[in-house]
Amino acid sequence: MPIDGGGAGHDLRHHGDAEVRDGGAALVDLAVNVRADTPPSWLRERIAASLTGLAAYPDGRAARAAVAARHGLPVERVLLTAGAAEAFVLLARALKVRQPVVVHPQFTEPEAALRDAGHSVDRVLLTAADGFRLDPGAVPESADLVVVGNPTNPTSVLHPAQALAELARPGRTLVVDEAFMDAVPGEREALAGRTDVPGLVVLRSLTKTWGLAGLRVGYVLAAPETVAELERAQPLWPVSTPALAAAEACVSPRAVAEAAHAAHRIAADRAHLLAGLGALAGHGVTVTGPAEGPFVLVRLPGAASVRHRLRALGFAVRRGDTFPGLDGEWLRLAVRDRTTTDAFLRALEEAMGAAAEKGVAAERG
Amino acid sequence: MPIDGGGAGHDLRHHGDAEVRDGGAALVDLAVNVRADTPPSWLRERIAASLTGLAAYPDGRAARAAVAARHGLPVERVLLTAGAAEAFVLLARALKVRQPVVVHPQFTEPEAALRDAGHSVDRVLLTAADGFRLDPGAVPESADLVVVGNPTNPTSVLHPAQALAELARPGRTLVVDEAFMDAVPGEREALAGRTDVPGLVVLRSLTKTWGLAGLRVGYVLAAPETVAELERAQPLWPVSTPALAAAEACVSPRAVAEAAHAAHRIAADRAHLLAGLGALAGHGVTVTGPAEGPFVLVRLPGAASVRHRLRALGFAVRRGDTFPGLDGEWLRLAVRDRTTTDAFLRALEEAMGAAAEKGVAAERG
Repeated sequence: MPIDGGGAGHDLRHHGDAEVRDGGAALVDLAVNVRADTPPSWLRERIAASLTGLAAYPDGRAARAAVAARHGLPVERVLLTAGAAEAFVLLARALKVRQPVVVHPQFTEPEAALRDAGHSVDRVLLTAADGFRLDPGAVPESADLVVVGNPTNPTSVLHPAQALAELARPGRTLVVDEAFMDAVPGEREALAGRTDVPGLVVLRSLTKTWGLAGLRVGYVLAAPETVAELERAQPLWPVSTPALAAAEACVSPRAVAEAAHAAHRIAADRAHLLAGLGALAGHGVTVTGPAEGPFVLVRLPGAASVRHRLRALGFAVRRGDTFPGLDGEWLRLAVRDRTTTDAFLRALEEAMGAAAEKGVAAERG
Repeated sequence: MPIDGGGAGHDLRHHGDAEVRDGGAALVDLAVNVRADTPPSWLRERIAASLTGLAAYPDGRAARAAVAARHGLPVERVLLTAGAAEAFVLLARALKVRQPVVVHPQFTEPEAALRDAGHSVDRVLLTAADGFRLDPGAVPESADLVVVGNPTNPTSVLHPAQALAELARPGRTLVVDEAFMDAVPGEREALAGRTDVPGLVVLRSLTKTWGLAGLRVGYVLAAPETVAELERAQPLWPVSTPALAAAEACVSPRAVAEAAHAAHRIAADRAHLLAGLGALAGHGVTVTGPAEGPFVLVRLPGAASVRHRLRALGFAVRRGDTFPGLDGEWLRLAVRDRTTTDAFLRALEEAMGAAAEKGVAAERG
């Protein structure tokens, strides 16, 4: 697990939505990690109902109380944000940090936000050889901000809560991005709700499970003094009324139960995808495992050409090479229903065949 | 027009919504500067229609192009923000500023955002004796960021565009908050759309005219390099999909025409309010004038007790003493329809009578 000063070489501002956006609605989307067929109609109705109150400034108190209740925490430990993206900017700008470390490969926005705020960021690079598993000893003692995802985007690795908790130190802020944790059955290894880990900051998103990417809502769980510090750096009325209505709805016991049910379905759908990818092992496809998130990270020869061929066949997948620690051999695939996955696997097989021929031609040429 | 180092003494984070929120929906709201009966149903429908696309990340391109077209500017000069509040935070944090100056009394959020970002802020205090009119010579030459509102909240004074343009200097950013300009018939004295004023940054809000306070949407018009600088400090996907849909709708020619029509109605309603207040001149009520915004600033003896009495009578008005340059003698009143205004004027007369008696009792006691 080498430490890397970071810097150029990866486009930290590339995100899956760009892979779908240009090329249009015609593409079947396996690039963006948002659950399909969301938001559900009951949630859309709750959000639509909030539109009658738009003339008033947003009042976040009910949503904050609901989030606190969902995690068994006092409201002082909860901050609603305009998506996890705002939380990363707040963490980068509001906290007094000297040596931030980001554990990669992972979602690139935390590092981009830290760099934009003027920090120099060190990287801990987990490796494919280790299955992208975390060794807490690899994080330098001097780091006073450590950012890690769990389960990690794009590797789909679920780190043990105990290993993450061991990263906590006096004087260190430990940021655990749990944006995909509610897609893990039982939320195994979650740190949300824990108050015994010093300096712990947990980020949660409602975007992926509930199909609210367009609404900008998420939340931070942290010690009251950290919440207060981040809150001071927020604009006034940072979260819109529809987003607050959605947040309140999505942490209700009914919604949490629905998400838990979806997590089990995702696990079954992922098993189906993994079985199909396993059948392509002979073509050089390997899958990072065990995959525990609603997406999988695969390595395959000629991934860049395969991705382009897949687009031509109507499927958008997420390139891996913009993630620090990965290169042009990696792709991230969202878990979809069996029918979509079966169609995708057929396309992948075709794309790989074509790519392999092309590769041979290029080598000959 | 004295210059004031600012500092304590005014609660810069007090806003009109707090005057309505605690005490409930029962109060007739003359405290918050949002147009009544908004958003209109056609706009609510446009926003509701956007909810079907929530699962996708927001794509701000169409809204940005629509705003640019509305002001006859290239898209590089437009930045959509999560309300003007986000714009103030971006200006405070992203621009390299050494000596910011805020022209008061005005909306307090720009100064609060600058202080939160670590700046020490100088104030130019306009005075009642001058009718809160701007003398460009009062702004120190060394100021490299100047913030002024037009028309100004809470004074309702409309500064001449020429006087504002004269504040521009090489190396200075001139921020003109035009949040209420679309409530001025013909948008007289607007600087939005001008490209000949160096360092000009115009802020616009869709909140007040369209009743979208809950949605968080506004925009910045500035030179392309300033827009780029502010954009780099924004979180990813800063404006939600419903807010983008609203922005696009509110700058359409149809909406601009509707706002222009509303501006004339507001002017007539304001004249009615002013006539009623004029009849109370004998009781010591004076109105700052000429008032050009959708609110008026009044001075009256015992304003604090009058405000409390008004609450008891069912009317919420905005206290003036949290605005630098004002004290406990001032109140801000939103312009409402004639019926509401008539009822309010009756309540005011009653509240002043009671307050006057109380004042006499207190002096005797």
